Amino acid sequence: MTIRLPRLSLPQLCAVALATLLLAACSSTPAPRGTGDLGLVIERASGQVAVVETTGRSRLATVQGLGDLSHAHVTYSRDGRYGYVFGRDGGLTKVDLLLGRIDRRVVQAGNSIGGSISQDGRLVVAQNYDPGGIRVFDADTLEPLSEVPAEYAPGFRSKVVGLADLPGQRFAYALFEAGEIWVTDLSDPRQPRTQRYPAGRQPYDALVTPDGRHFIAGLFGEDGLALLDLWHPEQGVRKILSGYGRGEQPLPVYKMPHLRGWAVAGDYAWLPAIGRHEVLVVDTRDWREVARVPVHSQPVFVMARPDGRQVWVNFAFPDNGKLQVIDTESRSVVETLEPGRAVLHMEFTPRGEAVWVSARDDDKVVVYDTETRRPLAELPAAKPSGIFFTSRAARTGF
Amino acid sequence: MTIRLPRLSLPQLCAVALATLLLAACSSTPAPRGTGDLGLVIERASGQVAVVETTGRSRLATVQGLGDLSHAHVTYSRDGRYGYVFGRDGGLTKVDLLLGRIDRRVVQAGNSIGGSISQDGRLVVAQNYDPGGIRVFDADTLEPLSEVPAEYAPGFRSKVVGLADLPGQRFAYALFEAGEIWVTDLSDPRQPRTQRYPAGRQPYDALVTPDGRHFIAGLFGEDGLALLDLWHPEQGVRKILSGYGRGEQPLPVYKMPHLRGWAVAGDYAWLPAIGRHEVLVVDTRDWREVARVPVHSQPVFVMARPDGRQVWVNFAFPDNGKLQVIDTESRSVVETLEPGRAVLHMEFTPRGEAVWVSARDDDKVVVYDTETRRPLAELPAAKPSGIFFTSRAARTGF
Repeated sequence: MTIRLPRLSLPQLCAVALATLLLAACSSTPAPRGTGDLGLVIERASGQVAVVETTGRSRLATVQGLGDLSHAHVTYSRDGRYGYVFGRDGGLTKVDLLLGRIDRRVVQAGNSIGGSISQDGRLVVAQNYDPGGIRVFDADTLEPLSEVPAEYAPGFRSKVVGLADLPGQRFAYALFEAGEIWVTDLSDPRQPRTQRYPAGRQPYDALVTPDGRHFIAGLFGEDGLALLDLWHPEQGVRKILSGYGRGEQPLPVYKMPHLRGWAVAGDYAWLPAIGRHEVLVVDTRDWREVARVPVHSQPVFVMARPDGRQVWVNFAFPDNGKLQVIDTESRSVVETLEPGRAVLHMEFTPRGEAVWVSARDDDKVVVYDTETRRPLAELPAAKPSGIFFTSRAARTGF
Repeated sequence: MTIRLPRLSLPQLCAVALATLLLAACSSTPAPRGTGDLGLVIERASGQVAVVETTGRSRLATVQGLGDLSHAHVTYSRDGRYGYVFGRDGGLTKVDLLLGRIDRRVVQAGNSIGGSISQDGRLVVAQNYDPGGIRVFDADTLEPLSEVPAEYAPGFRSKVVGLADLPGQRFAYALFEAGEIWVTDLSDPRQPRTQRYPAGRQPYDALVTPDGRHFIAGLFGEDGLALLDLWHPEQGVRKILSGYGRGEQPLPVYKMPHLRGWAVAGDYAWLPAIGRHEVLVVDTRDWREVARVPVHSQPVFVMARPDGRQVWVNFAFPDNGKLQVIDTESRSVVETLEPGRAVLHMEFTPRGEAVWVSARDDDKVVVYDTETRRPLAELPAAKPSGIFFTSRAARTGF
């Protein structure tokens, strides 16, 4: 069969061309949708991220070309549209979740370990191993604004860890080699002002409490943690949980645990011990240890469900196929799950009804109902690691 | 001058018409934008709401036809796109913030006092004075699913106040005439299951703590508040702050204060006293009064900045032209502001750098920097009252 096309005059052709162009323009403008239920899943081996939504539990898009995403971290613009992806290779990529594409990208360091966004959403800050320090960027354009080299002695730059945004355009972070906590005020983003506080041997990561008041750095070089009260920084750093492993034989450490603000549940902080099969429970009113909960293996992430009733724990290699759930009232493990091989990360939905779990070596993300602990969905994903939802935009310390 | 139009053939006309239609379709699809920085301002006298954004601090749209918006409350869909506006006349309007228009609207009762959304975002629940009870709707379609009449004795229905969403698809609320707290489980939304707890005389409003654990109802008929531990509801209601005004002469009450979860700052709850010029400070660990802060007049809203360092207070008529800021560490008033006449409500941006304040009788909304307490912007608004940001979607008890 042959289709006979009508012969068109020039004005007709113009009109048809115009219509076609408009149609193309329309199709590139996606249907309106909210961003409150969106997130990114890091697909490390492919240098890409999946844009996901937590209402229907589906993948909306795949964004490629993000470089080395080992240990990648994501922070969000205050409107929830853009995710800032910090890659290990120093790449900082601004991903547009609504259009499912890269908006901007810079390579800002040789070796980077994450970043954060200022309280007002105007500044993105990267924390770097090499060259050691923090760098400050305009959140819209990624234009570099300033940097704070972590030069703790002439010619010596430290790796920076545990960066956290604070109220008042400030950022706190720890210096591994220097054994210090620094607090930088970026009220004038081109003129950073930094205060230094001695902290202890080899801080390896840190957290700020959800209210932005207490900054706590874990110490690798000694038993204990370093606490700085940001309402009273003049009092300096105080050691807490000093010597919690005293006299015990340390186990080999397969992976350093992570510390973030979600470890705080109600009046207590739940912290992974280093090289021990324990979660430490600390009273946030006096920062004393009140309990230790024995767990399956060496904990990596210890995360409280948003209501603080449960704490979920994953583990270091080679025991990383399991997840445990602690009931915070009885302080005991109430469930052991096996989501798949190499459970690297998890993220709760903002109000905690579900948790998304990455099982890297089974190439999937598993979504659980946190109350029944039954799987709600599985999404195929290419070697997934970190999972980050846009609700982080509304919180301090993420 | 005369413009000569070319004579068009039928196909030409069709093409032009098509182009025009497509252009119209395009223009009705707004440019993509995130919803994390959006909100609604109630313009009560006009039965309308303003769609605002907190990054550039501007009004994006005005949505009309919402009926009687006295005491209107807004809760948000989990994606942040839709606001559910509960009007006093029983109207429940689903407003599309991205398109700036009404998506759906039902009139569900004769006299309503607000509503809430379930943890999973699928159910919207209205609390009603007349007929007294709660009604449950599908959040997408507003289809009615079920109701719980507040019939506390045969033929007697109570007004419902203080509705709060809880983890696990549950809702807690108080019954004014019945003097009870009810907890309804909507896991099966067409088959509500309700537990009743005696609470005390005339509960007038309530709050749930941000973790969803403690439900606290203020009592108008007696000095004190009713506390229900939702982790242990079998223990029943416990009275706290009993007799806090004992022996003192009550003042006339010009407006009942409001209670919501934002009253909790760190380890303390900050509660408006009824008919007294005081804010009560309660330790959330043992629920004892630890201090009273004298304030300008009878407090109405007592709201903690998200980091808990400040508590902002507005006041009942005729002293409602002032706002006071309490420093939570020193427990004293550190600032008194005069934003305009009839300061009815305020709302913090999610991370607390700014607060939006409505000054009804000056037809404006004033935005303050919470640290410097200097005004950042003023937006004209027609008799503004409540201000509600989409970040409420990610929180329990809003």
